[in-house]
Amino acid sequence: MQANNLTLTSWVEVPEDSDFPIQNLPFGIFRTKSNPAPRVCTAIGDYAADLAVMNYLSLFDELEIGNEVFNNRYLNDLMALGKAKTNALRNRIASLLDAKNDEAKDLAWHFLHPMEKVEMLLPVKAGDYTDFYSSMEHATNVGAMFRDPAHALLPNWKHMPIGYHGRASSIVVSGTPIRRPLGQTLPDGADRPVFGPSRLLDFELEMAFVIGTPTSLGEQVTTAQAEDHIFGLMLFNDWSARDIQKWEYVPLGPFLGKNFASTISPWVVTLEALEPFRIGGPEQDPLPLPYLQYEGKKRFDVNLEVQIQPGGGEPFTVCRSNFKNMYWNMAQQLAHHTVGGCNLNTGDLCASGTISGSTPGSYGSMLELAWKGTKPLKLPDGTERKFILDGDTVIMKGWGKANGVRIGFGEATGKVLPALEY
Amino acid sequence: MQANNLTLTSWVEVPEDSDFPIQNLPFGIFRTKSNPAPRVCTAIGDYAADLAVMNYLSLFDELEIGNEVFNNRYLNDLMALGKAKTNALRNRIASLLDAKNDEAKDLAWHFLHPMEKVEMLLPVKAGDYTDFYSSMEHATNVGAMFRDPAHALLPNWKHMPIGYHGRASSIVVSGTPIRRPLGQTLPDGADRPVFGPSRLLDFELEMAFVIGTPTSLGEQVTTAQAEDHIFGLMLFNDWSARDIQKWEYVPLGPFLGKNFASTISPWVVTLEALEPFRIGGPEQDPLPLPYLQYEGKKRFDVNLEVQIQPGGGEPFTVCRSNFKNMYWNMAQQLAHHTVGGCNLNTGDLCASGTISGSTPGSYGSMLELAWKGTKPLKLPDGTERKFILDGDTVIMKGWGKANGVRIGFGEATGKVLPALEY
Repeated sequence: MQANNLTLTSWVEVPEDSDFPIQNLPFGIFRTKSNPAPRVCTAIGDYAADLAVMNYLSLFDELEIGNEVFNNRYLNDLMALGKAKTNALRNRIASLLDAKNDEAKDLAWHFLHPMEKVEMLLPVKAGDYTDFYSSMEHATNVGAMFRDPAHALLPNWKHMPIGYHGRASSIVVSGTPIRRPLGQTLPDGADRPVFGPSRLLDFELEMAFVIGTPTSLGEQVTTAQAEDHIFGLMLFNDWSARDIQKWEYVPLGPFLGKNFASTISPWVVTLEALEPFRIGGPEQDPLPLPYLQYEGKKRFDVNLEVQIQPGGGEPFTVCRSNFKNMYWNMAQQLAHHTVGGCNLNTGDLCASGTISGSTPGSYGSMLELAWKGTKPLKLPDGTERKFILDGDTVIMKGWGKANGVRIGFGEATGKVLPALEY
Repeated sequence: MQANNLTLTSWVEVPEDSDFPIQNLPFGIFRTKSNPAPRVCTAIGDYAADLAVMNYLSLFDELEIGNEVFNNRYLNDLMALGKAKTNALRNRIASLLDAKNDEAKDLAWHFLHPMEKVEMLLPVKAGDYTDFYSSMEHATNVGAMFRDPAHALLPNWKHMPIGYHGRASSIVVSGTPIRRPLGQTLPDGADRPVFGPSRLLDFELEMAFVIGTPTSLGEQVTTAQAEDHIFGLMLFNDWSARDIQKWEYVPLGPFLGKNFASTISPWVVTLEALEPFRIGGPEQDPLPLPYLQYEGKKRFDVNLEVQIQPGGGEPFTVCRSNFKNMYWNMAQQLAHHTVGGCNLNTGDLCASGTISGSTPGSYGSMLELAWKGTKPLKLPDGTERKFILDGDTVIMKGWGKANGVRIGFGEATGKVLPALEY
């Protein structure tokens, strides 16, 4: 039984627009009021399925995975088992949930929980987090705004997936409130900085992938090998304080402008579940150095959307983009990351950088959508947005659709709270 | 009994030039051939003292610290106990090793190991690693070389401790060989990069501090509170591939030019052991914003030295600097790091940035010592160095001395191996 079989249906009812048909089966960490111990789960329709209980019920006995892998605060131990094992687990879950198999049906009340009754937790423990900058449209927009529109892309950009190290400790799960940061900014025309709340708080629409099988210090991963190390993907909001970032970032890059928080969605969608959405391209000219060249379809056609929900208001879609808007793919990012010998541990995260398309409605940040504040967005409640206001909730969604099957990521949401008094 | 008491002597013989008198008592992780399980130790003279065995022998019973804290791969669980507990432990060790106390003397064969017979391991598990850039002389030298000598310091530099996130996964313990990294560089005058071994491999002389008591997301640590979170310090070599760094670092900062390896010394010297070396200053003009202002002596007078030992040759001292050559102190660095809400976990590392003094012989990197290759250093074996060659071992040492007592850090060493074939 292959989880990805498009004709498969489950005995669990799956609403038509659900992100979680039997072909998805992402992994997450959850807890319930009746059992507050964190444990591994999957999603099916509107239910979270408790994999720790399913293992305890001997439903995975042939896989010989210890209970401690499922009764776990993070997915790291599961991911570290390697793809052969975790793919077998995912296929076994599909078999157990298959409409043609009633083996687990009578046990369902032991392991199925309505999703609105569970609490989803941060799914992975990231030792290191790397942020790339791999959408050409985003890099071009930022370059045009802050440097020279005629030479918006810097000379190195088309030769390597530019990236930097971000802060792992402040990555939070969807639903966690985001406190507007305090920090230094340089007012226009001033020669010394002032201290206070960031006035230019922004989201960045990104996808993150998580490392399953680690690499060793000194080990170079080729573009052909790279995907063997990628367990799955999540939505990623790389919150940014543009005014803090602008004053601090020369010459060593972003620091406090980014490290106050990043939000990830709770469900890790496996690379295997995304197979139907593979696409090729784009053409890369100039041809990159040999270690960055690759074969096959390495991009993914996944729709992405950002909504802003004002305090007390309705969500309003401000951005429609797509994960295919990447110049550098994940295999190239990983090959570059390891080419000098840097090692990657299980749980480490790599984010794409802001994913902007070529049209204004597809830009992945407020900086670009409102073009540095010069083109404010009008919301249905009559208010305008140049950046994110206190009380706004930013909601990110993502899904692919092929042959009538929709594979979704759930949501990455965060409500912005006012800065602390100072 | 206070470990820092300058009149204290031990029944363990301590050579006059030892880094490890009874006033030091740093913490480390070691193993032995007869017992390969990693465990916590301290250093006294030429011996490592096994704290796991000392606890098992009931010597620390009053402190009620579980065996699992000492039988541990890292110091993190020990550091997380908090300063009240770890300072009490350090004072109890001093009491047990005191020449006036023979309580533990007959048990010494159980817990004392000649240092040359033990293997020291990476002492802390760092989730995140931050590198600052806090020596004014270093920032000025680099700015003068790569930008404009008349405006060597960038406008933000005197207003905040500039820092960036580095790579935690590739931090290795002293003695680990360092593989010369492969990567992209842009030859002079070329318009596209080439691939190969870095030709400009460099060390950076730094000190790193490790977080003991963590902070919460959103918690701002003041300069007055900051030192309560600092467990101790190590020597830190932030290996750098200058040619890779130069081509990649605009606009998001260093990435592959730094993340192939960093070397730390194995002994964590507590902040308490460094009390005798506190000094004030320097004057900060312009006065920093209030959250960066501080009271008291926050710098430390610790001598630092770098030697290069060519393959088969003798070590030659190329740099004599001092940890006091810092414009921004650790308390200011931590206050800045957390002012926007970024959290710090037990084990996280913060490094100082290259510590250069004001004279050429005190510069903390080959880039500065040989002034971008224009002033090669002559070694006693007749060879020259613009940067580090294959086969060279770089050795860093550090010690403070006050009232006849020398508190040292041991060494951070790494031998450079040739790049992999490509």
